[in-house]
Amino acid sequence: MTSFQVNPVGSMDLLSQLEVDKLTKSSDHSLYSLFRNCALAVLNVGSNTDDSEKIYSAYSDFDIKVIRRERGVKLELINPPEHAFVDGELIAGIRELLFAVLRDILYTDVKRSISQQSTDDTTHLTHFVFDVLRNAGSLRTAVDPNMVVCWGGHSIREFEYQYTKEVGYQMGLRSLNICTGCGPGAMKGPMKGATIGHLKQRVSNGRYLGLTEPSIIAAEPPNPIVNELVILPDIEKRLEAFVRVAHGIVIFPGGVGTAEELLYILGILLNPANAHQSLPVILTGPKESEAYFNSIDSFIKQTLGEEAQRRYTIVVDDPEKVAHIMRTEMHAVRQYRKSIGDAYHFNWALKIDPAFQKPFYPTHENVEQLNLNYDQDKASLAANLRRAFSAIVAGNVKEEGVNQIKKHGPFKIHGDKQIMALMDTLLKDFVEQGRMKLPGTVYKPCYQVICE
Amino acid sequence: MTSFQVNPVGSMDLLSQLEVDKLTKSSDHSLYSLFRNCALAVLNVGSNTDDSEKIYSAYSDFDIKVIRRERGVKLELINPPEHAFVDGELIAGIRELLFAVLRDILYTDVKRSISQQSTDDTTHLTHFVFDVLRNAGSLRTAVDPNMVVCWGGHSIREFEYQYTKEVGYQMGLRSLNICTGCGPGAMKGPMKGATIGHLKQRVSNGRYLGLTEPSIIAAEPPNPIVNELVILPDIEKRLEAFVRVAHGIVIFPGGVGTAEELLYILGILLNPANAHQSLPVILTGPKESEAYFNSIDSFIKQTLGEEAQRRYTIVVDDPEKVAHIMRTEMHAVRQYRKSIGDAYHFNWALKIDPAFQKPFYPTHENVEQLNLNYDQDKASLAANLRRAFSAIVAGNVKEEGVNQIKKHGPFKIHGDKQIMALMDTLLKDFVEQGRMKLPGTVYKPCYQVICE
Amino acid sequence: MTSFQVNPVGSMDLLSQLEVDKLTKSSDHSLYSLFRNCALAVLNVGSNTDDSEKIYSAYSDFDIKVIRRERGVKLELINPPEHAFVDGELIAGIRELLFAVLRDILYTDVKRSISQQSTDDTTHLTHFVFDVLRNAGSLRTAVDPNMVVCWGGHSIREFEYQYTKEVGYQMGLRSLNICTGCGPGAMKGPMKGATIGHLKQRVSNGRYLGLTEPSIIAAEPPNPIVNELVILPDIEKRLEAFVRVAHGIVIFPGGVGTAEELLYILGILLNPANAHQSLPVILTGPKESEAYFNSIDSFIKQTLGEEAQRRYTIVVDDPEKVAHIMRTEMHAVRQYRKSIGDAYHFNWALKIDPAFQKPFYPTHENVEQLNLNYDQDKASLAANLRRAFSAIVAGNVKEEGVNQIKKHGPFKIHGDKQIMALMDTLLKDFVEQGRMKLPGTVYKPCYQVICE
Amino acid sequence: MTSFQVNPVGSMDLLSQLEVDKLTKSSDHSLYSLFRNCALAVLNVGSNTDDSEKIYSAYSDFDIKVIRRERGVKLELINPPEHAFVDGELIAGIRELLFAVLRDILYTDVKRSISQQSTDDTTHLTHFVFDVLRNAGSLRTAVDPNMVVCWGGHSIREFEYQYTKEVGYQMGLRSLNICTGCGPGAMKGPMKGATIGHLKQRVSNGRYLGLTEPSIIAAEPPNPIVNELVILPDIEKRLEAFVRVAHGIVIFPGGVGTAEELLYILGILLNPANAHQSLPVILTGPKESEAYFNSIDSFIKQTLGEEAQRRYTIVVDDPEKVAHIMRTEMHAVRQYRKSIGDAYHFNWALKIDPAFQKPFYPTHENVEQLNLNYDQDKASLAANLRRAFSAIVAGNVKEEGVNQIKKHGPFKIHGDKQIMALMDTLLKDFVEQGRMKLPGTVYKPCYQVICE
Repeated sequence: MTSFQVNPVGSMDLLSQLEVDKLTKSSDHSLYSLFRNCALAVLNVGSNTDDSEKIYSAYSDFDIKVIRRERGVKLELINPPEHAFVDGELIAGIRELLFAVLRDILYTDVKRSISQQSTDDTTHLTHFVFDVLRNAGSLRTAVDPNMVVCWGGHSIREFEYQYTKEVGYQMGLRSLNICTGCGPGAMKGPMKGATIGHLKQRVSNGRYLGLTEPSIIAAEPPNPIVNELVILPDIEKRLEAFVRVAHGIVIFPGGVGTAEELLYILGILLNPANAHQSLPVILTGPKESEAYFNSIDSFIKQTLGEEAQRRYTIVVDDPEKVAHIMRTEMHAVRQYRKSIGDAYHFNWALKIDPAFQKPFYPTHENVEQLNLNYDQDKASLAANLRRAFSAIVAGNVKEEGVNQIKKHGPFKIHGDKQIMALMDTLLKDFVEQGRMKLPGTVYKPCYQVICE
Repeated sequence: MTSFQVNPVGSMDLLSQLEVDKLTKSSDHSLYSLFRNCALAVLNVGSNTDDSEKIYSAYSDFDIKVIRRERGVKLELINPPEHAFVDGELIAGIRELLFAVLRDILYTDVKRSISQQSTDDTTHLTHFVFDVLRNAGSLRTAVDPNMVVCWGGHSIREFEYQYTKEVGYQMGLRSLNICTGCGPGAMKGPMKGATIGHLKQRVSNGRYLGLTEPSIIAAEPPNPIVNELVILPDIEKRLEAFVRVAHGIVIFPGGVGTAEELLYILGILLNPANAHQSLPVILTGPKESEAYFNSIDSFIKQTLGEEAQRRYTIVVDDPEKVAHIMRTEMHAVRQYRKSIGDAYHFNWALKIDPAFQKPFYPTHENVEQLNLNYDQDKASLAANLRRAFSAIVAGNVKEEGVNQIKKHGPFKIHGDKQIMALMDTLLKDFVEQGRMKLPGTVYKPCYQVICE
Repeated sequence: MTSFQVNPVGSMDLLSQLEVDKLTKSSDHSLYSLFRNCALAVLNVGSNTDDSEKIYSAYSDFDIKVIRRERGVKLELINPPEHAFVDGELIAGIRELLFAVLRDILYTDVKRSISQQSTDDTTHLTHFVFDVLRNAGSLRTAVDPNMVVCWGGHSIREFEYQYTKEVGYQMGLRSLNICTGCGPGAMKGPMKGATIGHLKQRVSNGRYLGLTEPSIIAAEPPNPIVNELVILPDIEKRLEAFVRVAHGIVIFPGGVGTAEELLYILGILLNPANAHQSLPVILTGPKESEAYFNSIDSFIKQTLGEEAQRRYTIVVDDPEKVAHIMRTEMHAVRQYRKSIGDAYHFNWALKIDPAFQKPFYPTHENVEQLNLNYDQDKASLAANLRRAFSAIVAGNVKEEGVNQIKKHGPFKIHGDKQIMALMDTLLKDFVEQGRMKLPGTVYKPCYQVICE
Repeated sequence: MTSFQVNPVGSMDLLSQLEVDKLTKSSDHSLYSLFRNCALAVLNVGSNTDDSEKIYSAYSDFDIKVIRRERGVKLELINPPEHAFVDGELIAGIRELLFAVLRDILYTDVKRSISQQSTDDTTHLTHFVFDVLRNAGSLRTAVDPNMVVCWGGHSIREFEYQYTKEVGYQMGLRSLNICTGCGPGAMKGPMKGATIGHLKQRVSNGRYLGLTEPSIIAAEPPNPIVNELVILPDIEKRLEAFVRVAHGIVIFPGGVGTAEELLYILGILLNPANAHQSLPVILTGPKESEAYFNSIDSFIKQTLGEEAQRRYTIVVDDPEKVAHIMRTEMHAVRQYRKSIGDAYHFNWALKIDPAFQKPFYPTHENVEQLNLNYDQDKASLAANLRRAFSAIVAGNVKEEGVNQIKKHGPFKIHGDKQIMALMDTLLKDFVEQGRMKLPGTVYKPCYQVICE
């Protein structure tokens, strides 16, 4: 058995006995195990599988304890993954992430108990997202808009990865910050590129903000470049966090997760209350990915219509242009927020319908009952399509989802004939292009699209 | 009408709409008025009255509003006291205190709603004190013991005040930090002296920590030298905060409040569980105050006995010696905490009996029922004597207490004949020496000591 | 023998072997002894004599050595004055001053060897002053004008001292910085007052700049509040440094040194090239000092005329007004410098005539030959009067001057009858008011005013 | 004509009129033109030629001026290379380098005039190197040994470049800093790799120190990652700076410049005075470069012998091992310096013979007269071989050298038959492997090896 003691970073050295007790194996198994699994995910950086179960079973003898000392608390790691260490010392960036996990697990737990009763009131849901981000120190008031959210697949091809790095570099040169879902692929490339851009511009406080959730952190572990990690309890709060901290959004090639994200933001922007919102959205990739964007674009056109198309720009093979647009648009964002008196650090004015805020549990029953027909307004259709893709993500890589599929077989997705045909094509493309899972395994679909 | 907008300090620029709403006049009058009164107290620095009512009525047209802006919230002050401004700009130190008020009023409110149910569990009371101090950023883990709590009267004589400054200077030269109740007199002198000592030692992060409570903040407003202000909800939590952050305690001449503090700490140190606690307590003053300490010392001897006397040292007219002892004792404190694995920043190991933790409401009935006889252990007698003095403080300067006295006449204090005689003498001395209230008024006792 | 090793502050830990050798007793006695004496002066803070000889003889066994170590050089102090230490450790502020001495002694020596040949070219003299200040880090480019030079006596009365503190406090509250000649009295008061003002305004980088010279540093040792000390080689370069870094000048009551300073600045401002210079000069003191200023004012009127009077304002007993004027005038200074493209941190545009720049050696012969008649322009008369007062300062407290007087008797000052009468009166006032030397000795004049 | 004004970085905003005048086109053409050319080189980052003349002629209309302003000086750039700008703003890192050029050109000029007379005294040469590094702020006293000098070719193959990055990454993960000659290839790779390692370890003050000289800066311009640039006046002082700041040396594949560097350090380490020096030297490269190292190793063996071989270690294809050895050796370096009382920041104890310190001017005559025979001690042979390779570097890429070759044809290198044969082989290998010049031109040798 190997054991390491780790000194805390930030304010996480200040825990009361009550809090330490909560994280003990014996006292509250569910909180302890949430903490242990997220900690393991963070330590398991650089792993090349997105199969949570494999990771958890490979490190079944891993344990973590909170110990109180004269100068605050320490963490004890028992049998941690070796590659988190260099010459016997834990990599400092991973140490930070570890204490971010501790912070968010504890904070979310406290807050959950307060706000339990009021989850119906969506004002409280937004306040919750704000509160978690604030507690993590991820809302900065003194600065002008500069945060670009980058979405895209965790499993992308080498030339796509190089492209995301180049876009990140060009944004870094323009002192823009990066926020992603903090796994590999399109979530790592822009950060890595931006570091070199920031370095050349002597931006010493460059931000690489990672937003994740307990159910996906093992499959898509944060890279230690991430210097701010925030764990939101579920995908809906995570998506809300993305769009409320974003001053602009760049979407790289990806799979079902990326599709979910695109549908989420378009559904929100289609809300008439957001008609004047200033929030640039750019879809971009290298020359070789042009076909990919064409098929996405066509899917959006045929499902959500031209109004939705107007909310994004497609830029092919031009990282400098992407960065230049973003830099320029920041002025418009600033102007807009100022004109309506809204905060730069949190987009309070963006109206998010409860359909996008409330958690969707991807059970077979819920999936089957999704309304995927044209007999509804575009925003509602976007919300339901988002849920469908969300279910597939869960079935692919989230522990609970994977277990559901094992037990009950693939999700059955019903709906309008044309929509189903469109989805089927899109999903088949994703499979063919290897966007569903990391390379090394044959992908077995967790869904069936049923064209009635 | 004059109106000023004030930019926030620290993280207080980040409030959600829910929080802003809470502090609005219309929505929650009690929270708003608590906030307004504390803010007014802080702005009214340098006032020379300890009569809260006078202050509140002098500024009855004062108002305060929280406004949301692009870069976070601002405060709007309407008709604030003029002397908080220099050439039309709010003094920066006062601005800080103002946002400390905002922070603690909001935080305490949130926490109160959580812990309401569990106030019987005194573990939760200690956690609460810890939580408020932590949220204020007043617990520092990376540093060795160096915090000296200074107690003493708000109304003291000039030579006593000079003495407290000199002790502060000598402690500052030894890089010790100062924590007081943050009013005038013995609460201001040590801080002011320490600043010059710190300056000469190039201690750029010298701490001047003020711990106060809403009911006394107007009578004893924090001086802008205070660079950390924490507002605890009541005197019991404030006293607990004092003794848990203290690495040493210096007691200067004072009146009933100082007596309350001395009885509090002695009562706790008499607890057998604290027999080995390393916590130096020094009573000190200039030559002219020697008689004062003799009478205090004799009061302690005759009520709590010699064991209690052994827990403090009296040093007359030697500031350098006081500072030198404190500096030296810091090593013992460090050693002790280390040996039992307790934190440097918060004295978890100090056992505080519920009798000292639970709020005592100084109503006439409660005062009358206090057991002030020898038929109890020394710690309990200390607890009850503490309550008696606490009631007199309230009757002298706390709004609620003063109102009680107006309505029902003086508190009646019953008890053992000898104890009553001792109290009577002590209190008479305080009155004669002008320690009850700031000069300028004739003191009218708010109590009657009844020797049965 | 006691010996202490002191770690360096700033960049003074980086010396080459060549430099270390220079400061060794054996190799270059004059440089070593300059270094030793200045170091001793700085360590002898808080001494209450202004008699250099006494100080040097009291510590005749004091020695100082530069030692090379792995992490840079250290200083070894042998038999240093005890009061520079607290509990056996050198006060940090004094440590800083010690390394400022080392820095300036070394730097001035290097530069002297370069510029020796060119001392006739007064451009090089100004460059030299600039170079020494720059090397000391005392020129800050990123800031708006805010440096107020305070002149006044080292030997002043208690109520005058309190007044200088109050003016300093009011200037500190307005975020103004203080520069003085860094001895006791009017050179310490404004700094001490400003510290409290800065503290309340949370000005963490308040500057307390002391400009001194080797021949006076022992008589007027810098207080450890001084957080920037610069040693200029002679009084002329020191005066030039004062007026080139000043954005405003406050003159408190003082003796011959203060008179020298006033004549210096008026002589310069009378130069037609400086007619438009924006440089506020305020003479101020408490009510009790009103007569003092009247006699100074009258002396100026009768020697330099009304034009000279117009370059200063007299403010009696109103610290807030003094500070308010200075704060307001800073805008005019900024405006003026901007309009002519001159630096904020160094007043290049101020024209200083060689008569004010070139060193005046106060020998008996030189003093006797001074032209103190009306048959010259006002600026020249000011230059010569300045020299006369300078000689008296030297005869009072500078080692070389004191020795001259011992050997040859008092200086003989000749000149126009009326001027001599005026000088005589002024000097007698200084003697009567105890402004010549620190209290404790009978003052024996080092001069004779001869009214021919 | 385009013109940009650039604000200064560091203390370079403080120049006196005398200094500004020196850099004016009209007043001192040689200093101005040195300044202009170095500034141009720095602005011309990312250029893909190592032909200085081409660069200078491509930007013949480039001009640079120093302007004085209220907040210090500014630089005006006229017709600067476009790629130094992003969206119209100069890249911050390049701005820093520009002011480093200004700093070193001015400082070296001042110092040269002082030390002119004394260049024979090699103590002064070492002091000069120390002085320039100190003035640049590149000597840090508070830190343990951690500076690894990386040498290697500016023109290397892609897989070699990737390898240097990987070694840099592994050293960055171990918190080691990097110093190189600051051009492309092996001088850029380790820095770029180290940035990611530092980032993951949250080393926010990672050092990327570039040491260059005016005659090579255009051919090998510093990358903006370099965050400390120091310009030494000639190759001998630059080499001395390298070995005195180095705590360890890594040598990657390279051409004649790298050979020069290897001979320089081996020549010094062969000096018996340096027998106990702790200074790890590692030769390393990817698997594909194994043959390269074999031929270097064999050249050393047959010229300088086995003793020389013992002073370095060859590591093939193992970046982690290289970094691990360096990290471990740092303890030995620390121990050694401590044991002899030498500085960590500057290796004073390393004995460098005048033969290695005095400038060698690569004229045809000087080259022809080099003694390249076995009839001398190994250190002298190393010194002369070093000079031979130095001449070839000059003939390849330094302006003066290139001009010499144009005028007089290739250098003629005479010497011992066996040594000539060895050199000839080595040089031919360099040519074949493309190590002489950047790709894109046919290499025309600037030398003839004559085997007599």
